[in-house]
This record gives sequence, C-alpha cells and structure tokens, in this order.
Amino acid sequence: MEKHFPFTETPENSVGALGEIKLIARIREAFREISPPAPRGIGDDCAVLPAVPESFSAEVSAALPQRLVTTDSVIFSKHFDETVSPENAGAKLIRRNVSDIAATGGVSADAVLAFVMSGDVSAAWFKRFLSGIAGACIECGVELSGGDIASAPGKNFFSSTLALTGFSENPLLRTGACEGDFLYVTGTLGGSILKKHFDFRPRIAEGRFLAALAPETVHACIDVTDGLLKDHSALLPAGTHAEFDFRAIPISDDARTLGGNLIQRAFCDGEDYELLIAVAKTQADFFEKTWRENFSQTRISRIAKIVSGGENPELFRRLANARAYEHFLNGN
Amino acid sequence: MEKHFPFTETPENSVGALGEIKLIARIREAFREISPPAPRGIGDDCAVLPAVPESFSAEVSAALPQRLVTTDSVIFSKHFDETVSPENAGAKLIRRNVSDIAATGGVSADAVLAFVMSGDVSAAWFKRFLSGIAGACIECGVELSGGDIASAPGKNFFSSTLALTGFSENPLLRTGACEGDFLYVTGTLGGSILKKHFDFRPRIAEGRFLAALAPETVHACIDVTDGLLKDHSALLPAGTHAEFDFRAIPISDDARTLGGNLIQRAFCDGEDYELLIAVAKTQADFFEKTWRENFSQTRISRIAKIVSGGENPELFRRLANARAYEHFLNGN
Repeated sequence: MEKHFPFTETPENSVGALGEIKLIARIREAFREISPPAPRGIGDDCAVLPAVPESFSAEVSAALPQRLVTTDSVIFSKHFDETVSPENAGAKLIRRNVSDIAATGGVSADAVLAFVMSGDVSAAWFKRFLSGIAGACIECGVELSGGDIASAPGKNFFSSTLALTGFSENPLLRTGACEGDFLYVTGTLGGSILKKHFDFRPRIAEGRFLAALAPETVHACIDVTDGLLKDHSALLPAGTHAEFDFRAIPISDDARTLGGNLIQRAFCDGEDYELLIAVAKTQADFFEKTWRENFSQTRISRIAKIVSGGENPELFRRLANARAYEHFLNGN
Repeated sequence: MEKHFPFTETPENSVGALGEIKLIARIREAFREISPPAPRGIGDDCAVLPAVPESFSAEVSAALPQRLVTTDSVIFSKHFDETVSPENAGAKLIRRNVSDIAATGGVSADAVLAFVMSGDVSAAWFKRFLSGIAGACIECGVELSGGDIASAPGKNFFSSTLALTGFSENPLLRTGACEGDFLYVTGTLGGSILKKHFDFRPRIAEGRFLAALAPETVHACIDVTDGLLKDHSALLPAGTHAEFDFRAIPISDDARTLGGNLIQRAFCDGEDYELLIAVAKTQADFFEKTWRENFSQTRISRIAKIVSGGENPELFRRLANARAYEHFLNGN
C-alpha cells in the first residue's frame, strides 16, 4: 500500500522552507475555485459575507447587515508560555479574534471553539483557561455556540482555535486607501511582550465609530498584529508607499523600558492590537476633532501620508535589521 | 514569577483522566454564562442561531432562514494516518463538517479554516491536502472565506480545523423525539475503517428532505459519527430507551469483511456518517413510501422503537465489550 507520511526529513521540501508569503500564495492558488475575491474570500481581517445567501432572498439580503467571520488560534509555546496565567491565555484567544471584528467596524456575535490537546493537559490549568475565555466573552459580548475537542497524539500539546462571527452594516476594509490619505494609529506601539500581549482591550467602540465615518472620511482600517511595518503595507494601494513622520510614531512606555532601536520596536514588535486607519486628506481636521470628542482617552497619532512610488529608503535605513516580520507561518 | 505550565506529570490530574463526558460537563459548567441552551449553544450537531442578531431587527429576523454553525478538526495520527491519501484526508475535513449541517437539514454556505502544523510538513503533501479540501468544497457547495496558519512547536504535527456555516429554514434537531417514535437509519453501519471513513458522501439531500418533513413526520435527527450506540442515546427523551430490532440493523459489507461481533461493529465502529432519524409512529408508512419515491438508491432501515424505561438489557448483553465509544475527548 502506498504511504503518505505528511512530514519530510528534507528541510528544503518542507512548508517551513517555503516561508509564510509563499505558503499563503500556494493556499490561495489551491483555493482559487472555492474562495471568491476578498473581502468575501481570503485576504482581509475578516471575511465579509451576506447575512443570508443570495439564493434565499436577494432583496431581503440587501437590507441586512453583513456577516463577518474570522478565525485565529492560541497555541502553547507559540502564542503564550508558562509565564502567562491560564486566564490571560484564554482571554487572548477571544480578544485577538474580536480585534479583527473591531478592525472591520463590526459587533461580535457568536463563536465556535475547537481544542486540540494532549491527554496530559492539567485539568486545573484547563479550568482556569476556560474561565479566561468566559470572562473575555462577557467583556466583548461574545456568545459561545459550540465546539469540538480532540486529543492530540504525544505530550505537551495545547492548541485552541476560535471562529468568531460578527455583523456590520458598513464594514471597514483593508482596501480603499488612496494616494494622499493620512495614516493614523490608535494608542502606542512596541514592547507589547511586557504586558499588552496578554492584557489588551480590542478597539471595539473605536472600530464602530470609524466604520460610521466610512467611506467619506475613513477609507480603510487594519489592526496592527504583525507589527506596523508589515501591516501598514496591506493598506497601501499599488504604486504607493507610506511617508512616515518618525517623530510622530507613538512609542509605548514598554518599548522604552525594553530599550534598543525604539523605531524598530514600534514597527516590528507586533501584537499591538491597535487600529491603523487611512483617512481622506481633506477630512483630517474633522477626523481629529471628532475623534477627540468621542475618544478623549484614546490617543490617535497621524504617522504617515500615502505618496506615489514604491521606494521607501528612509524606512528601510531605519529598520536595517528588521526581517523578523516575515516568519514562517503567520505568528498572529 | 509564578509559573503556569499547562501539563501535568500526575496522570490523575490530567484531562485524560477526566474522560470525555466529565470534560464536556466541565466545559459546559465553565461556559454556562456565555453559552445559551442548545441548539443555540453547546449540544447539537450544529448551533442554530438567528441569521442576524435580534438587536438588528426582530421582525426581519423572523422571516429569515436560521444560521447553522459547526466545527470539527482533522489531525494526523488521530483522524487519519499515512495509509490515507492527502486528498482523502483533506476531503474528510470538509465532509465531516458538512455531515453535521446535513443532519440539521441545512445547506452549507461558507467556512473558515485554521491550520496548526510543525515546520516539517511536506510542501508536496500539503499541496495535495489542499487539493482534497478544494475538491470536497466544490462537491458540497462550500465557499472558503478565510483562515489562519500557525506553526506548531516540535515535529510531526498536523492539525486542521474547519468552522462551517450553513442555513436552514426549518432546522432538524437532536431533540424532539417522543416515546413511540420509530428510529430509522440510512445506509449501512460498521466497518467504515476499510473505506467509508475517507470516502463518504454527506447525506445533504436526504437531510434537507427530512427537514421538510419536520415536525409532523420527522421529529429529530443526528448523524452517526461516534457509533450508533452512543449517538442514538442523544435522540432519546429522558426516561426512555430504544428497543432495537437487531435483525433490522443494516450491517455493511465492510463490517462482514472484518468479521467478529457484527452487531458490535454496527453499534460501535463509528464514522458511519449516516443519518439516524426519529419518525412519528403514525407517519411511518407515509415516511417509508415518500422516502422510497425520493431516495430509491439510499437504503433506509427501521431499527428501533422508543419505549419507556431506562433499561436496555438486551442491548448491553449483545455489546458486552463495547466500552470503546467513551474515549477521552471526542474522537469524531
């Protein structure tokens, strides 16, 4: 009988050797017949779908909010380690998914949850992980609809995957930014490993507010999870780059505590869970004023302008060693 | 700093020692504030939810089909091994989720997909796994909306999790069976390890047909994945048991090929992906006639009657060694 062992002893034949970008390209290619263009298919923070299939009722469907779906996993020794309390690890699974709904300007609704874990997971630890999930669901307004548990072979393995549904009457996408737009970011960036990694509040209210300002004032939005360097490029139209005002980058106190190249921390540390927003140039004053009126406690910084041309020598000079953002397989 | 290692060296403190039933009970307890009663929360083949949250529009919502959501994983060395082609393993991920939508009488719509895998997964093997997913999505009418990839620590680990959304105007639940109902099962049971495990067609058309006969004729339905012994009990109202007609149990050719206690094979082998249906006693003749008219190629067998009382000595006598159906963690 033919054998189909999924793993290879030859590193150059592995998915690890492909790297994240090529691997995602291969997935998109394999799924080109089953996944429509983003945002309905692969490619945005959330998939954006009709609330009910068009086949049921096209007229009714047009009057309904759109359905958002996102999925993310939290895995031991990848997304957290033994320094993190089980409650915080469980809460992270909820919050990182909610952050994708927030970046799309939606309201979280319901989720299904799948555990894959080895039999040696501690029952006491698991109970506390579940309690972290429950607390974050209450905090974020998420209802848990169902799930699955499967035992993993071997020892010391724990993985949890959430698929979260939300709704939005006016979803905010990654696409839509124009040359001339300003880029704004909420909060501060960098050094999240010290605290924010496991203690952040998804920007739910801010995301809904931004969606209400689209498309006249707000053109596009993404949550900063892989780091500003990588994530900002998802907002850029072809043939443009972001001209950053490096003095305006909001560097977090935790980045300063860690020290080193602070611009690199702000651009590459990742797991910031802040919103990066493209705003129409002519609406910038209005945007800043209305933001301050609505979110006086949430810092907003105008950090860049989208300009034509694909080169960004200043950015790459400042981030000479910043290759960390292309990991094998999306770490976020 | 306090350490929170998720695993225990003391087997009696592990989730493995708890076993599946107690573990699920603990999850339900931990989530009692965030998960409403089934079928909206944990407990049926699919969660059954309003198409849009009631807060958007209660009147509109009432006119819409209901949204179904389910999730299931496929893991190497748990759900398949190296004897299975990567295409069949990938197709299984889709089909086992679609089977849950089919058992609820729904139409599959869209899915998100999460991979957790070690870096040594073969790129060639993975490409074929993706191709199996794509083929089964086309076959079952599933659109792929998005997903996530995360690298697992260590070697030789591959896990894939799908969350699938479907819709139904008249969802068929596990609850609803009454004393006096007959239990019918589609197809044949047992021995699926030889072939059906990785080569089954979810009973989509049959499920929709059954839903259209609810609630007058068809009272309840479940797909047989953990084996008839375990799964039939999910249909039974409290204080009843199923009085089986053992001569009517449709034993598969593959079960006969494997040999041994054939009744035990039919009840405990699992992974049959057939539908088990509770039908009103007074509607049985009509049900059988209309079934034959619509599904002349799909065998249907009346295998039991729901009767009062909690005892089932005949069943347990015939399945003396049948404890295999309570695994640690749901194997299906």
